Amino acid sequence: MSINKDQIQDLNRSGESQHQQQFEFLQEQLEIQGINTESVISKLQALQVAIPSWALGAGGTRFGRFSYGGEPATLEEKINDVGIIHSLTRSAGAISLHIPWDTPEDPEVIRKLAAVHGLTFDAMNSNTFQDQQSQNHSYKYGSLCHTNDLCRQQAIEHNKQVIDIGVSLGSKSLTVWLADGSCFPGQLNFRKALERTMNSLKEIYHYMPADWKLFIEYKPYEPNFYSTVIQDWGTSHLLANECGENAFCLVDLGHHLPNTNIEQIVATLLWKGKLGGFHFNDSKYGDDDLTVGSIKPYQLFLIFNELVNRPDHNPSPAWMIDASHNLKDPLEDLLQSLEAIRLAYAQALLVDQQALEQARISNDVTLAQEILHRSYRADIRPLLSEARLRSGGALYPLDAYRKAAVREKLIERRGLNTVATGL
Amino acid sequence: MSINKDQIQDLNRSGESQHQQQFEFLQEQLEIQGINTESVISKLQALQVAIPSWALGAGGTRFGRFSYGGEPATLEEKINDVGIIHSLTRSAGAISLHIPWDTPEDPEVIRKLAAVHGLTFDAMNSNTFQDQQSQNHSYKYGSLCHTNDLCRQQAIEHNKQVIDIGVSLGSKSLTVWLADGSCFPGQLNFRKALERTMNSLKEIYHYMPADWKLFIEYKPYEPNFYSTVIQDWGTSHLLANECGENAFCLVDLGHHLPNTNIEQIVATLLWKGKLGGFHFNDSKYGDDDLTVGSIKPYQLFLIFNELVNRPDHNPSPAWMIDASHNLKDPLEDLLQSLEAIRLAYAQALLVDQQALEQARISNDVTLAQEILHRSYRADIRPLLSEARLRSGGALYPLDAYRKAAVREKLIERRGLNTVATGL
Amino acid sequence: MSINKDQIQDLNRSGESQHQQQFEFLQEQLEIQGINTESVISKLQALQVAIPSWALGAGGTRFGRFSYGGEPATLEEKINDVGIIHSLTRSAGAISLHIPWDTPEDPEVIRKLAAVHGLTFDAMNSNTFQDQQSQNHSYKYGSLCHTNDLCRQQAIEHNKQVIDIGVSLGSKSLTVWLADGSCFPGQLNFRKALERTMNSLKEIYHYMPADWKLFIEYKPYEPNFYSTVIQDWGTSHLLANECGENAFCLVDLGHHLPNTNIEQIVATLLWKGKLGGFHFNDSKYGDDDLTVGSIKPYQLFLIFNELVNRPDHNPSPAWMIDASHNLKDPLEDLLQSLEAIRLAYAQALLVDQQALEQARISNDVTLAQEILHRSYRADIRPLLSEARLRSGGALYPLDAYRKAAVREKLIERRGLNTVATGL
Amino acid sequence: MSINKDQIQDLNRSGESQHQQQFEFLQEQLEIQGINTESVISKLQALQVAIPSWALGAGGTRFGRFSYGGEPATLEEKINDVGIIHSLTRSAGAISLHIPWDTPEDPEVIRKLAAVHGLTFDAMNSNTFQDQQSQNHSYKYGSLCHTNDLCRQQAIEHNKQVIDIGVSLGSKSLTVWLADGSCFPGQLNFRKALERTMNSLKEIYHYMPADWKLFIEYKPYEPNFYSTVIQDWGTSHLLANECGENAFCLVDLGHHLPNTNIEQIVATLLWKGKLGGFHFNDSKYGDDDLTVGSIKPYQLFLIFNELVNRPDHNPSPAWMIDASHNLKDPLEDLLQSLEAIRLAYAQALLVDQQALEQARISNDVTLAQEILHRSYRADIRPLLSEARLRSGGALYPLDAYRKAAVREKLIERRGLNTVATGL
Repeated sequence: MSINKDQIQDLNRSGESQHQQQFEFLQEQLEIQGINTESVISKLQALQVAIPSWALGAGGTRFGRFSYGGEPATLEEKINDVGIIHSLTRSAGAISLHIPWDTPEDPEVIRKLAAVHGLTFDAMNSNTFQDQQSQNHSYKYGSLCHTNDLCRQQAIEHNKQVIDIGVSLGSKSLTVWLADGSCFPGQLNFRKALERTMNSLKEIYHYMPADWKLFIEYKPYEPNFYSTVIQDWGTSHLLANECGENAFCLVDLGHHLPNTNIEQIVATLLWKGKLGGFHFNDSKYGDDDLTVGSIKPYQLFLIFNELVNRPDHNPSPAWMIDASHNLKDPLEDLLQSLEAIRLAYAQALLVDQQALEQARISNDVTLAQEILHRSYRADIRPLLSEARLRSGGALYPLDAYRKAAVREKLIERRGLNTVATGL
Repeated sequence: MSINKDQIQDLNRSGESQHQQQFEFLQEQLEIQGINTESVISKLQALQVAIPSWALGAGGTRFGRFSYGGEPATLEEKINDVGIIHSLTRSAGAISLHIPWDTPEDPEVIRKLAAVHGLTFDAMNSNTFQDQQSQNHSYKYGSLCHTNDLCRQQAIEHNKQVIDIGVSLGSKSLTVWLADGSCFPGQLNFRKALERTMNSLKEIYHYMPADWKLFIEYKPYEPNFYSTVIQDWGTSHLLANECGENAFCLVDLGHHLPNTNIEQIVATLLWKGKLGGFHFNDSKYGDDDLTVGSIKPYQLFLIFNELVNRPDHNPSPAWMIDASHNLKDPLEDLLQSLEAIRLAYAQALLVDQQALEQARISNDVTLAQEILHRSYRADIRPLLSEARLRSGGALYPLDAYRKAAVREKLIERRGLNTVATGL
Repeated sequence: MSINKDQIQDLNRSGESQHQQQFEFLQEQLEIQGINTESVISKLQALQVAIPSWALGAGGTRFGRFSYGGEPATLEEKINDVGIIHSLTRSAGAISLHIPWDTPEDPEVIRKLAAVHGLTFDAMNSNTFQDQQSQNHSYKYGSLCHTNDLCRQQAIEHNKQVIDIGVSLGSKSLTVWLADGSCFPGQLNFRKALERTMNSLKEIYHYMPADWKLFIEYKPYEPNFYSTVIQDWGTSHLLANECGENAFCLVDLGHHLPNTNIEQIVATLLWKGKLGGFHFNDSKYGDDDLTVGSIKPYQLFLIFNELVNRPDHNPSPAWMIDASHNLKDPLEDLLQSLEAIRLAYAQALLVDQQALEQARISNDVTLAQEILHRSYRADIRPLLSEARLRSGGALYPLDAYRKAAVREKLIERRGLNTVATGL
Repeated sequence: MSINKDQIQDLNRSGESQHQQQFEFLQEQLEIQGINTESVISKLQALQVAIPSWALGAGGTRFGRFSYGGEPATLEEKINDVGIIHSLTRSAGAISLHIPWDTPEDPEVIRKLAAVHGLTFDAMNSNTFQDQQSQNHSYKYGSLCHTNDLCRQQAIEHNKQVIDIGVSLGSKSLTVWLADGSCFPGQLNFRKALERTMNSLKEIYHYMPADWKLFIEYKPYEPNFYSTVIQDWGTSHLLANECGENAFCLVDLGHHLPNTNIEQIVATLLWKGKLGGFHFNDSKYGDDDLTVGSIKPYQLFLIFNELVNRPDHNPSPAWMIDASHNLKDPLEDLLQSLEAIRLAYAQALLVDQQALEQARISNDVTLAQEILHRSYRADIRPLLSEARLRSGGALYPLDAYRKAAVREKLIERRGLNTVATGL
């Protein structure tokens, strides 16, 4: 099941003339403000966001899971699904794998399959928060922080294997998210656990090829409910510094305590050259893993307003969606997320940074807000469509997805009750 | 596998003389303060807390579950495990069942089995947050609030069946916890969903026998991450009022937004005569379901300081533990929880309520705090042991549990990889 | 210092033709979607938001206050400032007074002055959270909840006086916000404090003329830091019910615990016909009193999406801004707040409610989100300008305010170091 | 007004025999557990906590302030009040000054006065969050982060002066708490603001004498409500590293987002040798500045359980109370705070650290909790009294304070309406 260019052109046809009219009007309006529309469009075309392999099936909670028909059961099917999204949007040109859920039998075959869909392999993800049947030591009480040397070593070896697999696929980075922590006061020696984690990470870091990056994720709680070893960006930053210059912090938008100013964290990490990547999603309460932009779209815009000002000494971060689709069709959810990311990015590109900086220097707080709102309140959806159109994608991906009856066809092919490997 | 009185006496023997010395010293000290130790002890003996059938096996999170050896696989084994806890503590004289996980094949047999262990059946719990294989309509988008009449009716019927089962077991109440809500803005018509829920609850309420109580639980989020139909005590209270005088609010300590003053909610509900029951647990972040008293023991004491002042027009609430044991031996976790509840209760019983009220009237804020701290800082563990001893329980239940090698015996009998029905 | 229509016309001139072009394009686009632009415009023209008298000068925190030049020192000057805002926006046609800060010497004179500016008197506000030099009993330990009858009676009498003043000015409602609460566990008998508060409110309620409304505000904390007597909507709702049919709940956006779903509270109160009024502001952490729409504009839109669906049995709520301007020019801050309110209102008016309801019925979660985003992402600023233009206001109020050098003229007239009465 | 040793002996007399009995029983019980009571007592005697000069009068909120009779109006009177507390407790042997509120006219005189009371000068505190009449540049938009060089320089100079004053008084450290931040998105360039702050701090750091320490405080919000330049420990740690080895992080218990695991932060800073000092207080919602131990006493114990395990490479931290007494008599509040600190410290000293470490190594989560609870639930008030008695303090400081009618005498001497310099 795939969508080819002809199909997309057919689907676009009915909307094109109205789009053209909207785009031209917007272009005119932006030009009056001195904005170079072409530059924005080409930046939008360049933005590629990785899709995690585990987000292609329905997610669940500890209270259960309601499956979605036509879920991909194999790595091949997952790649296929990302291919569909990429065909429609031309902005999902990478996939992020999770080992052992996505261990390829023959990497070369998988690599070629991805290439057919125009996909590359983004950051590899290791898993030391669940036990696999074959393993000797349980991760119940931790992995890289475990008190038992053998368990720690097992977790380190697993990460090395993930790197090996990644190398075989052409990936260039490893994301380490650790569930390690404790559920009760007293359970963990905080300092020793952090020290053991540091030493484990260093061993993994030094195993990586020289052109690889290590992304260290942080999270305040869940699945441990009293403490998490890497609880915040400060801890992640400290560990990245200890590892070396190719180690970076990874920001997952849902991994913060209530009311955290995330955009400031992003700015601080950029300043130190240590922002490695992003896991996009949205949340109201905790790590809710909701569709990007569905709860706090203005916050997302503010984050992108930092990102478009990235200093040269911080390498271009890895973009990835990390969401869990408990209710929506996973592919529809991802299409909405991609659109929200592109919208926030484009809005940030419209901001008159010089005027903003001038307002800051003169402490004109009212004006600074006006400058941000001027871009945020603008309707730049025609820009997003235009960029997509030029790249061969759909004018309106979600409409196209529904008109092309993709889900129905996937169900037809795969059945109603398939379950994706992984969660 | 059970623990009989002789075993317990044997286990108590070594600690008795030291206990006696500690108890006598404490009694003396309390008498100086004018506290009637005997009255406190008899109240402690009377306190019985229900154990939920689903808390006897290992819990898990959406990231996985690490099972615990010797978990009970059947309702009979669950009753057996509660029996062990009750033998040791003499304060867990009831079990709270969850349907369909614990549907008894022959209620009479189950009732007799419970009686052998000295157990009664506390509130019944219905389940409309998961789909069962046999059901026609999915609860993915809600149950008592569902837009589809047939789905709603199915959920109502399920609750009626739970009442029927409860009647056959001698239970006198039904707890309704609804996962109903939404994950995204726009998904739900808040008002209509609440109205449908109200109507569904009324139908269930009117089906109950006249001597039954309906407990309506509230929760701000999870497993839905944008809205929950019964999001707070205010909504629960409103629904309980609509249903009638036998409908009450149920307070689960983990079901509140950050920083909520729960003890004030308890006081307000008592004032209105609408506090029906309690789900005890503890939490740092959300509905963490940790051991009672493991995170915020002082808050627990403050809650009990409201409860010991219950006005007559509020019936005696149902006490239940509702926790999830992801790491600890479930039975040990429950033993610690029971001890924490009894400790907080006893501390509250020690509070000089007259002096406290006097300090309040004269706005002596310093003194009011001193009066609370005087009781909270006292070491009244000997009182707890004495109450247990007199009731035939263990001086130190956790020590006894370990010395009697209960878990080892359970594993021997049931194996390492049993899984409890339910979560 | 005032701005007359000729001035405004002059200020509008340069932007008119561009506005006309934008408005026409937008109108065309909306018509394609079946939206009646004229209806939206007339609703926007009708929306009038009250300005609180205490928001016209610089606010402060417990750490100090940085004053703003040209602040109004008298009630007359405050009315003048609201007049300026109303001239520019035609949507601030009311002022909300705070007694004793704004006690008029001659109500008739004040009433006429307001009429000259086209202003009416919205809800009156009483103050029992500060001590006045003349008073006999301190509110340090509470007012309507105080343990001392005389203090409580004094607070009740104050509220009655505020009603009397309101009557003389043509106001039709009283807002009661109580700081009453406690800073430490034990300090307050929760139940008795709530009961005393209820009785005090009833006395005030029954003193009101029959065509008045009582608005009962709630707040979780500050200035008391352990408990607040009216801590949430549930408590406010309970008290409003006890008082009678002219008593309502008042929602201040900043008065909620972290992560509260406020739009659902709004929906619930509308359902029960008990939503009396709104205090608009924005916040990231607590009761931050920031410019409306500056932090969570999407949440504001979601709230308005409930409000535009108000059922007939809930009377039209009172709209008021309640913010504190610590850094910005207070008048500029209010202009930005008004625009944010109107924007959210207009966006909500654009929502295709029928399609949304249909998506809900069929549980099409993706589509429900799309429908909301379709309106939220539209750029409807030309609609706001058009509505203002037709009402005789400024196309771009903030630009006009700056071009007309209002602040400079106020400073010239009033000086740099005036301090507004009140906070 | 002071309390001499004879008075204290008189006040102690009536309670001594009962104390002796309690202490002996406790000692016996602890010995059975292998605890060396004498060692604990001598550590308790050694613990000295600094009292901040601004905590001796009533605090307030942005809604007002209710003054307390007999407040100290001068630096001399503040020293006197700390002297009273120290006489009673023998554990408040230092005072922490705030400049310009406490600028001494003649440092030598002040130093001698402090010595008479047995007090030393702990960390000096600078103030760049308020404007003083004499200053040229306003701190409205920041101080060490200000966009204006002259304003920044002024703030740096102020800090240098504070160091100079500190040197003249024998202080050895400077605490910098910055209110610098922003109230609205867009207002501040996060990166540049942090860079300017870093450079300013470096200049202050290098001005310090070689034996001084710089304490860098962090806080997420208030008085700025969108961002704070030093928002968390990670930022403070980063700045301390940039400054040098004599720069440290300062932890104020109230300066964290909801649900933060503070004890883990403490452990991490100790691990890195960067924990410089503590501001003790308690809170339920934000920076509530309540009496230490009044809300979350178990959290305080857990923090001390980290502190008693301080590694040698982290110097002994500075202990200070930082609270605001809105309702209670400030001196009574401080007496309660001191007792709570000593209690938590003593409880932590009782913890069997070896057994705890063993439980951690074997992942015996239940046992780890038991070990902590064993100490936390013990009643060790007799130890605190004994330590105080041996140091010449009062058995029961609060009782002694009231019996000696200290407040009445202060009011008699100073009047009812004095206001302390400062807030």
